[in-house]
Amino acid sequence: MKKLFTLWAVCLLSMLTVVAQDAIFVENQEIVSPEVNADGTVTFRLVAPKAITAQVWGDFLPGGGGVADMKEENGVWTYTSEPLNAELYAYYFVVNGQAMLDPQNTYLYRNIANYYNYFIVSREKGDNGDLYTVHEVPHGDVDEVWYDSPTLGMQRRMLIYTPAGYDKGGKFPVLYLFHGAGGDEEAWIDFGRAAQIMDNLIAEGKAKPMIVVMPNGNMNAQAVAGKWSKGMYKPSFMQHTSDPAPTVSMEQSFPDIQKYLESHYNVIKNRKGRAVAGLSMGGGHTFAVSKEYPGNFDYIGLFSAAILYGINSNFMETNLQSLRADQKLSRQIDALKAAKPKLYWIGIGNTDFLYSQNKDYRTYLDEKQFPYEYYENDGGHIWVNWRKYLTIFAQKIFK
Amino acid sequence: MKKLFTLWAVCLLSMLTVVAQDAIFVENQEIVSPEVNADGTVTFRLVAPKAITAQVWGDFLPGGGGVADMKEENGVWTYTSEPLNAELYAYYFVVNGQAMLDPQNTYLYRNIANYYNYFIVSREKGDNGDLYTVHEVPHGDVDEVWYDSPTLGMQRRMLIYTPAGYDKGGKFPVLYLFHGAGGDEEAWIDFGRAAQIMDNLIAEGKAKPMIVVMPNGNMNAQAVAGKWSKGMYKPSFMQHTSDPAPTVSMEQSFPDIQKYLESHYNVIKNRKGRAVAGLSMGGGHTFAVSKEYPGNFDYIGLFSAAILYGINSNFMETNLQSLRADQKLSRQIDALKAAKPKLYWIGIGNTDFLYSQNKDYRTYLDEKQFPYEYYENDGGHIWVNWRKYLTIFAQKIFK
Repeated sequence: MKKLFTLWAVCLLSMLTVVAQDAIFVENQEIVSPEVNADGTVTFRLVAPKAITAQVWGDFLPGGGGVADMKEENGVWTYTSEPLNAELYAYYFVVNGQAMLDPQNTYLYRNIANYYNYFIVSREKGDNGDLYTVHEVPHGDVDEVWYDSPTLGMQRRMLIYTPAGYDKGGKFPVLYLFHGAGGDEEAWIDFGRAAQIMDNLIAEGKAKPMIVVMPNGNMNAQAVAGKWSKGMYKPSFMQHTSDPAPTVSMEQSFPDIQKYLESHYNVIKNRKGRAVAGLSMGGGHTFAVSKEYPGNFDYIGLFSAAILYGINSNFMETNLQSLRADQKLSRQIDALKAAKPKLYWIGIGNTDFLYSQNKDYRTYLDEKQFPYEYYENDGGHIWVNWRKYLTIFAQKIFK
Repeated sequence: MKKLFTLWAVCLLSMLTVVAQDAIFVENQEIVSPEVNADGTVTFRLVAPKAITAQVWGDFLPGGGGVADMKEENGVWTYTSEPLNAELYAYYFVVNGQAMLDPQNTYLYRNIANYYNYFIVSREKGDNGDLYTVHEVPHGDVDEVWYDSPTLGMQRRMLIYTPAGYDKGGKFPVLYLFHGAGGDEEAWIDFGRAAQIMDNLIAEGKAKPMIVVMPNGNMNAQAVAGKWSKGMYKPSFMQHTSDPAPTVSMEQSFPDIQKYLESHYNVIKNRKGRAVAGLSMGGGHTFAVSKEYPGNFDYIGLFSAAILYGINSNFMETNLQSLRADQKLSRQIDALKAAKPKLYWIGIGNTDFLYSQNKDYRTYLDEKQFPYEYYENDGGHIWVNWRKYLTIFAQKIFK
């Protein structure tokens, strides 16, 4: 049987070779890269007999990102890392000064216009790497939907995770989850591993089955680049938030999203069944949406939040004094406090460039005796932290 | 306003640079690649001042795939193609003999384990390139669902396109659409441009609003690589169809798919609302499923079909004599003929390696006076033809 299949494979593969002229790839087939070794080190390999220099750039290297030299033997360049903690890591190769992806690694993610390879290190059940891994558990679905936004005057794309068992009936709570500047509606599902995190937490009974809604937070865009009629443009950082600056805010257009959810999905239609969270710019969206609609959400999560994004374009210069002087903010925070959400959660890394702004905001909340829960950990403005914050926050809500 | 946004952008971009060390990418930002010129030629550009050689591999080059030398000036390598017909094209660069993607082009597709950049050439409204382009028309949704397959003993992932307006009510017809060997449930949506083709045909009134179901045709796999618990393996050609060979066929497990559709979606539950089609191996699946369940489908489409895939692992050696000698096949084709499907459509390119097998099969059908519609065009076993066949077939069904 196998032999006969092989005949078929050879016939078709010969066609593919004509199409693709993949000789370069084929000669690499014996090479494994990356290889996660038993001791937690990771070996990278690249066949590049003509290269003068080859390096690996990795976010696991000192400083949260750097290059390490690879060594050549018989045309194969190799680098083995130090033992790595359980986590999802990104890397690419630099050959003769030119960035390129690892031809042996099928797994990519996109950050704005650039691609990275990634891999997962896991040491034991329940660690971060394990949580981001696809396991043999019931999987939720992901719907890529187009909803009507009359407020923005456009059709817009968003991704909606529904948990395993959603189709068996019942009403489900909803987490609205916002991406950061440079991201789009695919960011949380892609490098954010939101589907894997939710599948695994729900399967272990650590999180309630919930719907997770991931809209596009760039108010001038209908969708991720390439999925709408703007053409196959090269996305650039902040292009949909600043060029031109949108005239409608996330908080103004948010009701279109909630309306779509509550008319198309089996959801709990009150504050007990609504949570909102987001990272960086999306933390600013969370801040803005939650105070714009006090009493709408029982659970609010600010992840490395650009707190004042959305109320003040000058937000990087905002400090405790300007917060205290903002009368509208004061009224809104008072109203939110009066509405008594069950959880107002703030998470940030201690080297985040938004740390001092978050600290000012916490002082402001303290002065108002506004109750919140605070989580601080190592690291900066990075996905490692945002995946972690989602993991923590998801276990605290709807309980 | 813009200035203030810029301040914010600079702060955050400085963080990104620390994370990504994107100096290589940043220095390329002034370069546009690829650029589709007014005369239909396409210019490719690559910044690679240290390269000794640089080439572009493209499926638009003679023979359906080949390399062309780029020329260097001031560290920028350039190649301009001949004028190209309206179509979607794939390419990558080869620098010092090493394949790499175009750092200026965000648009990739994956073929098994290898990635290609792509671009679209369109000259006028209604041509192939135009049809594969995202336009400002109502968009259908794409659901990534997990369905239960008791026959295969696993949860399995499939993609389901629902047309714009699906949520407004009514019952919709369903096209079951199978991928080829080496593909997975994402193939038709990805390089097959199925969502764009359907969006555009439906918006122009050329095709009926329909649901398109894209299951995974590899019976040993639950999902595309990386989306199931097998881990982050490197996919290889036919690995899920031959290693080990599955013991359950597509036609045996197909009822699980149809059952899911008919219990979860608003569909027409009779033959008038069911079509099935597929390419290559998926053409074999279409052949097998349609004769296994005569009367189930009114519309059947075989695209460059590996006709006997699924009934005979030795299918490449199958010829007119062996077809005539197959008693089970004879009974099934007679039963299918008696069931009178409205359309049995066969499409193939005149240089396809499966051309002679398809010719034998047509002769066999002629001898049985089995009615079918036949479409032959230029080219081989390639996506250019499969997108075209879907376009033609989709306009013929449910009418």
